[in-house]
Amino acid sequence: VHAFIPIGIVHSTLQSLEQCPLQESEEAPEAWVEIFPEFIAACKEIHHGAHLILLTWLHQADRRVLVTHPRNDPTTPLTGVFMTRSPDRPNPIGIHIVTVLDIQNNRFLVSNLEVLNETPILDIKPVIHPLLNL
Amino acid sequence: VHAFIPIGIVHSTLQSLEQCPLQESEEAPEAWVEIFPEFIAACKEIHHGAHLILLTWLHQADRRVLVTHPRNDPTTPLTGVFMTRSPDRPNPIGIHIVTVLDIQNNRFLVSNLEVLNETPILDIKPVIHPLLNL
Repeated sequence: VHAFIPIGIVHSTLQSLEQCPLQESEEAPEAWVEIFPEFIAACKEIHHGAHLILLTWLHQADRRVLVTHPRNDPTTPLTGVFMTRSPDRPNPIGIHIVTVLDIQNNRFLVSNLEVLNETPILDIKPVIHPLLNL
Repeated sequence: VHAFIPIGIVHSTLQSLEQCPLQESEEAPEAWVEIFPEFIAACKEIHHGAHLILLTWLHQADRRVLVTHPRNDPTTPLTGVFMTRSPDRPNPIGIHIVTVLDIQNNRFLVSNLEVLNETPILDIKPVIHPLLNL
């Protein structure tokens, strides 16, 4: 068994799963990403306008789910969660492409982040090429 | 503290860090991804040619590293690991875009996977649009 240490936490207006837009929506709100003090050094060179990949721990997910109907639509074929973006999966890690809109002390504001308030953050990586999201 | 359960493991010819190509290289080898029996159901609908995002646990990384010289080049500016793709970071999660080349029982062959042999796999997600890697 391997253990994660959250490096930060999300502060969002999204307070419940019912408020979360589905994957393809582009209506996710802005959110503040708070970095815990011991990891602030690892943010050196993060700047306004940076394109980042946030990896989060979707803490309200159901880790027992192995198959699902994509988009919660019972008419879609039953599909393994590894071929879906469902948050319910054995290790509920979220991948989010965001842009830094503001930076204040140990927190930064990002665009379009579809996770619940208080979601732990596991890792941050740069998007190497914004158009390719690599 | 959150714990994850490996859902599979990588079988690769890459046996040591010295053999690993750097990020931008496209010379990473093919590798077999073995899914552990209890998670095979979650692979339903994974097919030959599927474009997948593999999330791995880079088990040989140094989790204490917070800043680094990108590309191990001492002439580059010291940068927070969250603005680099260095494997050394607090939670060493690797993101890899691969294509399924073959499927045999509980394992599948993928293209271009730059991780060491026996790297644990945390999650698999579909690439929703191959050109965007979303």
